[in-house]
Amino acid sequence: MVTLMMSRRCCRSRADMTAANEVMPIGAAGEKAQHAARLALPPGEATAAQQQSSKRGSLLSGVICINILILGCAMVCSSVFSPDAVSPVNVQILLSVLLLLTTAWMVYYMAYVARLDKAVLYKDGHAGPVWLRGGLVLFGVCSLIMDVFKIANYVGYMHCDSAVKIVFPAVQALFILVQVNHLPNGAVCLPLSCRCGLMLCLASNLIVWMTAVTEESQHQTVIPKSDHGNEGECNCSHTACSIFKEAYYYLYPFNIEYSLFASAMAYVMWKNVGRLVDQHAHHKHRFRLKGILVGPVVGVAMLVAGLATFVIYEVDMAMDDKEKKELALKIHYLMNTVAVSLMSVAALIGYAIYWLDKRDHVSEKNPTRSLDIGLLLGSSLGQFLICYFNMVAIVASSATDVLNALNLACSLLTIIQIILQNVFVIEGLHREPFNEDHEGHVFANPHALHSNQETHQPSTMRRSTSVVIITTGMHVPVTLGPCWKRRLLKEISIFLLLCNVILWIMPAFGARPQFDNELGFRFYDYSTWSAVVNIGLPFGIFYRMHSVASLFEVFLIT
Amino acid sequence: MVTLMMSRRCCRSRADMTAANEVMPIGAAGEKAQHAARLALPPGEATAAQQQSSKRGSLLSGVICINILILGCAMVCSSVFSPDAVSPVNVQILLSVLLLLTTAWMVYYMAYVARLDKAVLYKDGHAGPVWLRGGLVLFGVCSLIMDVFKIANYVGYMHCDSAVKIVFPAVQALFILVQVNHLPNGAVCLPLSCRCGLMLCLASNLIVWMTAVTEESQHQTVIPKSDHGNEGECNCSHTACSIFKEAYYYLYPFNIEYSLFASAMAYVMWKNVGRLVDQHAHHKHRFRLKGILVGPVVGVAMLVAGLATFVIYEVDMAMDDKEKKELALKIHYLMNTVAVSLMSVAALIGYAIYWLDKRDHVSEKNPTRSLDIGLLLGSSLGQFLICYFNMVAIVASSATDVLNALNLACSLLTIIQIILQNVFVIEGLHREPFNEDHEGHVFANPHALHSNQETHQPSTMRRSTSVVIITTGMHVPVTLGPCWKRRLLKEISIFLLLCNVILWIMPAFGARPQFDNELGFRFYDYSTWSAVVNIGLPFGIFYRMHSVASLFEVFLIT
Repeated sequence: MVTLMMSRRCCRSRADMTAANEVMPIGAAGEKAQHAARLALPPGEATAAQQQSSKRGSLLSGVICINILILGCAMVCSSVFSPDAVSPVNVQILLSVLLLLTTAWMVYYMAYVARLDKAVLYKDGHAGPVWLRGGLVLFGVCSLIMDVFKIANYVGYMHCDSAVKIVFPAVQALFILVQVNHLPNGAVCLPLSCRCGLMLCLASNLIVWMTAVTEESQHQTVIPKSDHGNEGECNCSHTACSIFKEAYYYLYPFNIEYSLFASAMAYVMWKNVGRLVDQHAHHKHRFRLKGILVGPVVGVAMLVAGLATFVIYEVDMAMDDKEKKELALKIHYLMNTVAVSLMSVAALIGYAIYWLDKRDHVSEKNPTRSLDIGLLLGSSLGQFLICYFNMVAIVASSATDVLNALNLACSLLTIIQIILQNVFVIEGLHREPFNEDHEGHVFANPHALHSNQETHQPSTMRRSTSVVIITTGMHVPVTLGPCWKRRLLKEISIFLLLCNVILWIMPAFGARPQFDNELGFRFYDYSTWSAVVNIGLPFGIFYRMHSVASLFEVFLIT
Repeated sequence: MVTLMMSRRCCRSRADMTAANEVMPIGAAGEKAQHAARLALPPGEATAAQQQSSKRGSLLSGVICINILILGCAMVCSSVFSPDAVSPVNVQILLSVLLLLTTAWMVYYMAYVARLDKAVLYKDGHAGPVWLRGGLVLFGVCSLIMDVFKIANYVGYMHCDSAVKIVFPAVQALFILVQVNHLPNGAVCLPLSCRCGLMLCLASNLIVWMTAVTEESQHQTVIPKSDHGNEGECNCSHTACSIFKEAYYYLYPFNIEYSLFASAMAYVMWKNVGRLVDQHAHHKHRFRLKGILVGPVVGVAMLVAGLATFVIYEVDMAMDDKEKKELALKIHYLMNTVAVSLMSVAALIGYAIYWLDKRDHVSEKNPTRSLDIGLLLGSSLGQFLICYFNMVAIVASSATDVLNALNLACSLLTIIQIILQNVFVIEGLHREPFNEDHEGHVFANPHALHSNQETHQPSTMRRSTSVVIITTGMHVPVTLGPCWKRRLLKEISIFLLLCNVILWIMPAFGARPQFDNELGFRFYDYSTWSAVVNIGLPFGIFYRMHSVASLFEVFLIT
C-alpha cells in the first residue's frame, strides 16, 4: 500500500479527502472490521452472499410493510364508510397491537445493542440530522400531552364506553416515549431483523398518520354533532371533559406531524441498514457571519414582520368579527406574497451565480445526500397539492375580490418559490466546499485511484486527474471565484433560511388560512378539502424544516 | 489494452461476459462513440459536465411532470365536486392541449430521429419488452375503437352540446395512433428534450388515466340518471346513440389499461435516457420443452378449465336470474381459489429448490432488471389493495355464506400467491443462466478487473476470483446441480406462466366479480368501492402480463 504524504498547501477536493479516508492504518481498519463482523456488517466490500441476504432482507421487510399498510388503509376506509361494522375501536385495537409490537422490538434492540461493547461506535449518524431529531422530540412531546389529555377525557366516559379508548392513548404514549429514545440513537444492527423492525415501525407510524388525518378531517366536517359513537347517551363523569377534548383536538396537528417525522426517520434508517457509516461525511465548517450583512438583516426583518402578522392573525381569528377576520387573512396573504416573491428573486440570483461560478461539482455518489434531496423534493409535493387545489378553486369560481386575488398570487408565487429554492439548494449541495484550511496531510492510494472501466462510476475521471496533481505535487489552486460571488451566495442562503423559519412557524403553530378562508370548503366537498389540507400541510411544515437544514448546509459549504 | 483469448471449454459466467463485452476493438468502439457523441450521449464514461446536465434534465423534467400531474389532479377533483364551476368540458380542454403538445413532440422526434443516419442503431431495446409493446398495441386498438364510438355518439348531440366533446376523442385518437408508433420505437435522443418530452407524455397519460378512472367510477355510481351535464334537454339526433354509448362504456377499461401501459413505457424510457444501450443484455436462449411434461399439462388443463368457467360466468351474468348469478360467482371463486393454491405450492417448491441450488447469483448491477422488478412489485400492489379491502369487508360484515367464504379464501390465497410468486421470480432472475454452449472466446481485461477499493461495488470480489481462473486457464466446471432440480424449476415456471395467462384473461376480458358480488358496494360507499376496483384491477392485469413475461425469462435462464 503506497501512501503519498503531502504537507504543502495544495488543492484538496472532497473526492481526494474521500480517497484519503479510505486508506487507514491496518490496525484501525482491522479493529473496525472486527466490530463490523460481530454486528454482521460487511467490513468494506460486501460479499455476494451478504449482498444477496441484504436484498432478501429488503424484500421481506418491504412485503411486511406493504401488507400492514394496505390492511391499515382498508380498515381506516371501512371505519369511515361502515362505522357500524368497523368501529373506530376496531381500528384502535389494530393500532395498539402494531404499536406494542414495534415497542417490543425497539426495547429488545435497545437492550441488545447496549450489551455489545463499544456499540456506541456504530450509531447511525445519518439517521439523526439534528433538525429531524429536534422535530421528532418537539412534536413527540406535544403528542404525549395530547395522549394525556385523551386519557383524562376518556376516563370520564369509562363507565359507559369501551376501555380501548383509554388503552390506545396509553399504548401510544409508551410507543412515543420509546421511539423518541430509540430512533435518534439509531444503532447499526443485525440487518435482517433491523430491516423488518424498521419497516414495522414505518408502517405503524404511517397508519397512525392515516388515522389521525382521517379523524381530523372528520372532526372538521362534523363539529356540531357528537362524533364519538354512542356518546350521545354517555355523559362525562367529571367536569373538565370539554376542556380536555378541545385541548387534544388542538394538539392533533402536532401528532400528525410527529408521525410524519418518525416515518421519515425510520425510512432513512432503513435505507442506511448495512451501509457503512460514512465517518467523513461531516466536514467541520465554522459558522461565521463575518462580512455578511444584507441577508441576515433583511431576513430578520422578514422574521419579525412575519411574527407580528402571525400574532395579529391569531388574535383576530379568535374574535367573531367577520371583517376583522377578512383583514387578518389579507394581511397574512400579503405578508406571504411579499416573502415568497423576495425569496424567489433571491433563489434566482443565487442560481445565476452558480451558473457563472466555476467551482467544481461534487461527482462522487453520496447516498446520504441523494436521500436528503429525495426527501426535500418529496415533501415539497404537499405544498404543491394545496396551492394547485387553491388556484383551481379561485380561478374556476371566478372570485375577483382582493382577498382571493392575494390568495391566488400567494399560491402561484409559492409554487415558483419552492421550485426555485429546490433548484438552488440542490445546486448548492452539489458543489465542492470552499476550503479555507489548506494545511493538512493528504494520503493517496494509487490502487484506489485506478481507473475502473467496468463500474460506470463517473467519479473515475476526476479522480484520475487529481492523482496526477498529487503525484506531480503541482500547486493548482482551487478556482475560488471572486470573493463577491461567494459572499452573495452566503447572503442569499442566510436570507432564505430565515424566511423558511417564519414560513415554518406560521403553519406549525396554528395558522390555517386554508380553513379560515371558506372558499375551499365551498368549492370542494368539506371532507375533500380538509383531507387535502391535512395531508398537504404537514408535508409543507416538514419541507420548511428540511429547507432550513439544507440551506444551513449550503451556507456552510459556500 | 491486454486481452486474453481462450477458446477452450471453460467456466463462463455472466460477469465475465460483461467484462468481455467492454473490451471491443478500438475501431468498433470509436464508431460507436462517434454516433453517441452526435446524439449527445456519453460514449461509456460520462464526464462530470454530462452527468451534471443529465441530473439537471431529470430534475427539470420531474418538476414539469409533477406540476402537470397535480394541476390535473386538482382539475379532476374540481370537476367531481364543483361540476358547475369546472365542467368535464374544462378538463377535456386541458387534456386536449396536453395531448396535442405531446403529439407534437412525438412527431417532431420521429421526424428528427429519422433524419439521423443509422438512427435505427440507437433504438432503445429496453423500452420495448415484447409484452409491453404487445399490450400497448392491443389496448391501443381498443381505445381507438372507443374514441370512434364516442365521436359517433357525440355527433348526435352536436346541435345542442359542446363541440369539445367531439374534439377530445378525435385528439385522443390521433395521440394514441402517434404514441403506438412512437413509444415502441423508442429511439435514443437528445437527453434534455427527450426527458422533458417523455415526462410530458407520462403526465398526459396519467391524467387521461385519472380522468377515465373517475368517469368510470361515476358511471358505475349513477347509471340510472343521465350523467352528461345538460343532456336531459338535449336529445340525440340519430338512432344509434344508445348502442354507441353502451359500446364505449364497455371499452372504458381497455382505455384505462392503455394509459397505464403507455405510462409504464414512458417511465421506462425516461429511466433509460442517457444510459448506453446494453447490447449484451439479451442472451439468446432457445425455448425448448424437451423433457418437460407435468407443468405444461397441468397448466394447459388449468387454462382450459379457466376458459370454461369464464364463458359460464359471462353467460350467466348476462341473464337476470339471481340464483344463476350466484352459482356463476361460486364457480368463479372456486376456480380462482384452486388456481392460486396450486400456484402458491408450486412457487414455494420452486423457492425451496433455489435454496438448495448452488448456482451462482448474478452480482453485477443491472438497471434494466432492477426497473423490471420494481414494476413487477409496484403493479402487484393493485391486487393487494382489492384483496385487503375485500377481506376487511367480508370479515367485518360477518358474512358466513358459502359465497363469501369462497371469496375470502380466494382473496387471502391470492395475496399469498402473489408474494410467493414475486419471491420466486426475483430469485430466478438473479441466478446465472445455465449455459449449454461452452465454446466461444472470452476476452478479459485486467484493467477492468482491478479491484477498486473505493467504489463499494460488491461484484469486485467475484470478478477478482474469475480473473484468477482465466489467467491460470484452469478448467472449473459450473456447478450445474443435478438435472432434476433444473427440470423441476422449468416445470414450475411453465405452470405458473400458464396460470398467469388465465388469471390475466379473466379480468382483462370483462369478469368483474368485485362488482357482481354486491358486498363491496354495500359495505363501502358506491364510489369508493368502484374507485378501489377501478384503480386496483388495471394494475392487477398489468401485473399478470408482466408476470408471464418474467416467468418466461426465468424459464429460459433456468
